[in-house]
Amino acid sequence: MTDTSSCTHGSQADLEQGSTFLPKFDADGLIGAIVTDHDTGTVLMFAWMNKEALQLTLDTGIGHFWSRSRKKLWRKGEESGNTLSVREARVDCDQDVIWLRVTVGGDGVACHTGARSCFYRILTAGKETAPHLERSEL
Amino acid sequence: MTDTSSCTHGSQADLEQGSTFLPKFDADGLIGAIVTDHDTGTVLMFAWMNKEALQLTLDTGIGHFWSRSRKKLWRKGEESGNTLSVREARVDCDQDVIWLRVTVGGDGVACHTGARSCFYRILTAGKETAPHLERSEL
Repeated sequence: MTDTSSCTHGSQADLEQGSTFLPKFDADGLIGAIVTDHDTGTVLMFAWMNKEALQLTLDTGIGHFWSRSRKKLWRKGEESGNTLSVREARVDCDQDVIWLRVTVGGDGVACHTGARSCFYRILTAGKETAPHLERSEL
Repeated sequence: MTDTSSCTHGSQADLEQGSTFLPKFDADGLIGAIVTDHDTGTVLMFAWMNKEALQLTLDTGIGHFWSRSRKKLWRKGEESGNTLSVREARVDCDQDVIWLRVTVGGDGVACHTGARSCFYRILTAGKETAPHLERSEL
């Protein structure tokens, strides 16, 4: 959240209170994007954008990302048809995370595993028990 | 005391379909955490956890993070009283992002700027216009 100390592209006031978009890319040139369903609020996925992916997303209104594993630009749904139509985009206080509120096209599936959301498992843990995952789709 | 210290990472099937928690920390030893309001679904903040912060969060049910700027463990709300009580925790398909659904204590404010959510600005852009931020609190 508040990692503005290393920021060189704007003052803290500019970043936090300004109306100028000053996206803060990390050392790899990426910015994180949280994707939620516009209507339900469900968190669907988290992915990374490079500058080009962010620009394409803003220009087209369709979610584009940078695949760190495949090292390539990626229009979500380019094969499955499950594209992400951006209904609203937001940025956080220090402008290093984007939040996209979307409508999922096609089958309405956001995760490559076939689940609607990538977050299909609840994590439970207690002092006496090891952490455990339990499937519970949203 | 629960144990999240597993360093060996599993197969893709283990990661995606298993019930074993195999958190994937990045090169800096951190894992991203999306924090949303349990009742409204509003995305409140995005922060980072090291192994200790994740462990403390699971053990206590209160959100702990790693401050990259201050380089220290941080219990959210330790000064403001706006602690995060975790109602549900989830993990994504490849176990490199945590989603915490929380109730915010104190004044119900999650952002250090005083806003309820760190995402208090909408990002608008079009082919003909430069990206622009507009304040619109959630």
